[in-house]
Amino acid sequence: MLTQGDKAPGAIDVVPLPVSVEQFAGSCPVSAGLEWRDQGPGGDRVREASARLLAGWERRLGCAWTFRPGRPPSPVLVAWEKAGAAIPLLGEDESYRLEISAAGTVLRAATDLGALRGLATLEQLLVVDGAGAWLPVVKIADRPRFPWRGLMVDVCRHWLPPAVIRRTLDGMALAKFNVLHLHLADDQGFRFESRTHPRLHERGSDGHYFTQAQLREIVAAAAARSFRVVPEMDVPGHATAWLAAYPELASQPGAYAVERRWGVHDAVLDPTNEKVYGLLADLFAELADVFPDPFVHIGGDENNGKHWGENADIQKFMVTSGLADHPALQAWLNRRVQRLLVGHGKQMVGWDEVLHPDLPRDTVIQSWRGADSLAEAARRGFRGMLSSGYYLDHCHPAAWHYGKDPLPADDVLTEEERARVLGGEAAVWTEWISEEMFDGRTWPRAAAVAERLWSPRAVTDTADLERRLAVLSERLAEHGLQHEQNEGRMIRRLAQGDPARAAILGIFASALAPIANYRRSRLQVGHTQATQLTGLEDAVRPDGAGPQRFAREVEEWLRDGQADAAQALAGQLRLWRGAAAQLITTEHGTLAVALADACDVGLEALSYPDGAAAVAADWAAEAMDRLAGAAAVRAPMDIAILVPLHRLVAATQIGRGPEEGFAGWRRRVEDAANLTDLVQRNLPPRG
Amino acid sequence: MLTQGDKAPGAIDVVPLPVSVEQFAGSCPVSAGLEWRDQGPGGDRVREASARLLAGWERRLGCAWTFRPGRPPSPVLVAWEKAGAAIPLLGEDESYRLEISAAGTVLRAATDLGALRGLATLEQLLVVDGAGAWLPVVKIADRPRFPWRGLMVDVCRHWLPPAVIRRTLDGMALAKFNVLHLHLADDQGFRFESRTHPRLHERGSDGHYFTQAQLREIVAAAAARSFRVVPEMDVPGHATAWLAAYPELASQPGAYAVERRWGVHDAVLDPTNEKVYGLLADLFAELADVFPDPFVHIGGDENNGKHWGENADIQKFMVTSGLADHPALQAWLNRRVQRLLVGHGKQMVGWDEVLHPDLPRDTVIQSWRGADSLAEAARRGFRGMLSSGYYLDHCHPAAWHYGKDPLPADDVLTEEERARVLGGEAAVWTEWISEEMFDGRTWPRAAAVAERLWSPRAVTDTADLERRLAVLSERLAEHGLQHEQNEGRMIRRLAQGDPARAAILGIFASALAPIANYRRSRLQVGHTQATQLTGLEDAVRPDGAGPQRFAREVEEWLRDGQADAAQALAGQLRLWRGAAAQLITTEHGTLAVALADACDVGLEALSYPDGAAAVAADWAAEAMDRLAGAAAVRAPMDIAILVPLHRLVAATQIGRGPEEGFAGWRRRVEDAANLTDLVQRNLPPRG
Repeated sequence: MLTQGDKAPGAIDVVPLPVSVEQFAGSCPVSAGLEWRDQGPGGDRVREASARLLAGWERRLGCAWTFRPGRPPSPVLVAWEKAGAAIPLLGEDESYRLEISAAGTVLRAATDLGALRGLATLEQLLVVDGAGAWLPVVKIADRPRFPWRGLMVDVCRHWLPPAVIRRTLDGMALAKFNVLHLHLADDQGFRFESRTHPRLHERGSDGHYFTQAQLREIVAAAAARSFRVVPEMDVPGHATAWLAAYPELASQPGAYAVERRWGVHDAVLDPTNEKVYGLLADLFAELADVFPDPFVHIGGDENNGKHWGENADIQKFMVTSGLADHPALQAWLNRRVQRLLVGHGKQMVGWDEVLHPDLPRDTVIQSWRGADSLAEAARRGFRGMLSSGYYLDHCHPAAWHYGKDPLPADDVLTEEERARVLGGEAAVWTEWISEEMFDGRTWPRAAAVAERLWSPRAVTDTADLERRLAVLSERLAEHGLQHEQNEGRMIRRLAQGDPARAAILGIFASALAPIANYRRSRLQVGHTQATQLTGLEDAVRPDGAGPQRFAREVEEWLRDGQADAAQALAGQLRLWRGAAAQLITTEHGTLAVALADACDVGLEALSYPDGAAAVAADWAAEAMDRLAGAAAVRAPMDIAILVPLHRLVAATQIGRGPEEGFAGWRRRVEDAANLTDLVQRNLPPRG
Repeated sequence: MLTQGDKAPGAIDVVPLPVSVEQFAGSCPVSAGLEWRDQGPGGDRVREASARLLAGWERRLGCAWTFRPGRPPSPVLVAWEKAGAAIPLLGEDESYRLEISAAGTVLRAATDLGALRGLATLEQLLVVDGAGAWLPVVKIADRPRFPWRGLMVDVCRHWLPPAVIRRTLDGMALAKFNVLHLHLADDQGFRFESRTHPRLHERGSDGHYFTQAQLREIVAAAAARSFRVVPEMDVPGHATAWLAAYPELASQPGAYAVERRWGVHDAVLDPTNEKVYGLLADLFAELADVFPDPFVHIGGDENNGKHWGENADIQKFMVTSGLADHPALQAWLNRRVQRLLVGHGKQMVGWDEVLHPDLPRDTVIQSWRGADSLAEAARRGFRGMLSSGYYLDHCHPAAWHYGKDPLPADDVLTEEERARVLGGEAAVWTEWISEEMFDGRTWPRAAAVAERLWSPRAVTDTADLERRLAVLSERLAEHGLQHEQNEGRMIRRLAQGDPARAAILGIFASALAPIANYRRSRLQVGHTQATQLTGLEDAVRPDGAGPQRFAREVEEWLRDGQADAAQALAGQLRLWRGAAAQLITTEHGTLAVALADACDVGLEALSYPDGAAAVAADWAAEAMDRLAGAAAVRAPMDIAILVPLHRLVAATQIGRGPEEGFAGWRRRVEDAANLTDLVQRNLPPRG
């Protein structure tokens, strides 16, 4: 999709990658300041966004910049034709064109919302180097592939206060997300201030909830960045916190308390109790007042039906109402809920499970099951969006999420059905994520999902994505996102003020990643909302810079064969090995032994003469066994450098079919229980 | 001052160190949560501060904590007898007692302000480790030594937006500062929104100014943390930005523009022009309305008198008014200004130069000249406070500032005169400090000044201070202060996305410090407000962890003589040497050559047999020459490890009087032009 001009002075470091970029020789120097003009109806939003952009640039430059010290400033024109909705709607025109020449910058868009998207691109284009500050000479034409590009934030399992949401909005703006989806009520917390039923937040939140005033501020800040805010109230399951306030609404009697454990619980609202609908009517009225967006999410997921099955009245009701099974009963409840929402002009969104033939076709299905279930919904006439593959708390690397497409190339949908696939949402569930960890488990990987939803499907170069994400990561940190700093701080705290120990833990951690998927819940059984998230497994980040760099340097060495590259790799392995050796007698012992041995494998592989055909196949087979053993260690962290180490071993077997060896090893590792995602983390997605 | 209990389970990591700490065996476990009660009149301030404390603790714990998972929570009582002023005044009672036992925590204070100071102590006492979360068992009795403990922030030379001030307030609360002094107008910017004379901020600020609404929010946030806010309007000098709006108020005709250069400028208000007082009357009325504090700072510093001397009317006025010289004329102006302030119930604060026999004795003198001039003011009946020695932008290490005392032990003042010394203010002038650098040039060193002003004079252990500052630094970062992260980010930016280059620059920088005092302005002539502050000298921090650790480890090795300590020192020196070697052909070449040679000196010293008397005195003399040469390099950064390296060389000369050798070397280095502060940085203060 990249079309290059007559000369390419460098790569374009923008996430999401625009639809079309033409780059030319030369640059647009802006050290002398900017003469900024905007032109279009309304424009407060554009002016505020321009001020944020300029403030960010001034922070990077470290000098006042709105005045002109002698030389003429560089002109910038931001122009748009009509004002988008004050509270943005689904499907607004977000397209823009950005032309930068030596003479200045022109950004044109159909709407002010498009202008904001163009500003997010422009902000990322500034280069500050020894030559001063300049912009590359480019022609960019850009528009999103999907109209619904969301980030779902679970504020229930662990509370995230307004300050976290505010800085999240700044990150979202840079990555061109356009929907913030707030998961406001779940078993472990009811986080919405209800004025009609204050017991809900009083008894259901431990005092940690958003006031309506705070939510209005979030909605306003989102609208100023031109994105929507969709609230979610999960019913009828995931509702234990509601029952802590109103146990009489439950399907089984009991003294309900806010749930502290993770997982799927039995507590569920009683669909035959008219009071349930009375409370929902009041609550949706409040919700509609605070959140102007036409969509309300009602959850609808993971109701195990146990309490319904054990309630004779509910079973009787099903018989008399002709409801064949629990899904049918839940669909019946959903239709009643949907009618309440219609009264406020709202359309309903729900997770996969709400999909039922009886539901009105304006319901939007959010799929946590996969692109197939999304396609199925589209075939049945429902609009939908993908979240399967986009759960950032699963701790996969960016490239893994990047490989998931709401509309895979091989789909068998008609054009009309395809149009029903609105996009997707990255999701951050917070069972294992505290406030301090939130930014590190969200950024910059969320931007990989944002790019998948914005850029053309053909944009799939993961190495280029990783390079651009590293640059974006700096920009995000400049906006106040904390993803860069919290790992180090948590490690320093673990070291109890001993800098040498902090250094060792830091080096050790730089070869690791948190285990992916929900394997952690199987390893660390009994963890609850009261478990301190202060371990090394909480500090380490998925997709860390250390393993990424090591993998890249291994590939470069295998390609170029430069001796000093091998030396650098060996130096890195010795550093990791040395740190691991010092941790063998600690709680991290098993993992440390495995890492040390894996590093030894790498050092042995590097010590073989380059490409020597004489290397014993026996040694290589054993080495691969050792790496597979390192992969099989039971720990809440994975060794994240095993695949490049395997590449080093395989490279000693040139002439003996290393590819076959690799495939065999991969199969062996995949066959080991629960290790599928280790390989997924370390490898580019298949196919 | 520390009295220990029957057992001392560990050091108390609190800044400022309390007046009296008794520590006992045992601990107060708080993992099961807290049952928090407060008791006293009013109390919104205490409840807000308690909520901030608990939120901070929950962030560190990574778990919800206000509920009780089974075990009984630990009780906390915060009690105070009377409410302090809603807008705190000079001299409020800030004392408190804090008793923590295994059974719980009791914090008692005379006022809610004292309770807030106690909470700042309590917050720092929490320990989170493998045993969970706990508090040490202590009895603390505490009160401040001085009632005026300020931080002055210059928002004129480089603009600092409200977000920076807001996070600064959080840092100040932790360090028990109680005055925020905002330097709002100077040659390079007029940063106060004037509604009576909007031209002042419109033409004098490049659009970078505080609105009155923003300032009211800052005052409210400060009052909530129980500190005062003192505004400064610098007159009659440092007023070029005023004249950009109203050139007719100047002492010489001209088209004035906002000054972009640093230093002392000729532009000065005309004291004989009645319009000057008209404008000041309007402005002070606005200022009094926004800032409720009874003190207003009028600057009064660095008027060179040139334009007064060149203005015949002004000279004539002096003759007819019997004003002998320019200081007398300025004192005449100050008296008129002071009368305007009295009209709003305000007392005047000014820099040293305002001190004049004709001034009313309720004027407060802020001394930038030193403790002697402060004592002189006290003798003459003026109240005063110290800022000399507390200029954080001078880039001295914390220990250096810590050695400056507003009331040195050898003062010759009477008790009455001593009572006039109200305290002091750390000051951050921003000629060489951008928004991005501000936190790193302010924190955690500001807390060393805060401790000097709070803790007893006898508390002077710099090694203990450095240890505690390192812990406080983490707490500050958890509150959102950015001092930890910006150095790395700026270095990564300098490396243009090349991680290997960033690593080399980072290692190189970890042996360096920015040059101290205003030597930078003599080295980098011609720098202005438009100069990008993006160099390595802007990124490196004074008082970095690298040199501090190296110095400490050298002392430990000299004391204990353990072989692996010597190996670790050699390893560190080789790391620095290796990084320097790779930068020799860059803009940092001269400094890199000097650092590499200095590291060689250290490695040679370490290679001598331990304590061998046979080491040639010739080698040592030459080695000291080489270190002195490294100190003399002209660069905007200093090598910050020269003194410990000298200690290593001297240690090879045991039996030949190393102390004498050291004194001689020190004299030689001090004699070299402009190098006094290099030694000041590296050595504990003399005497």
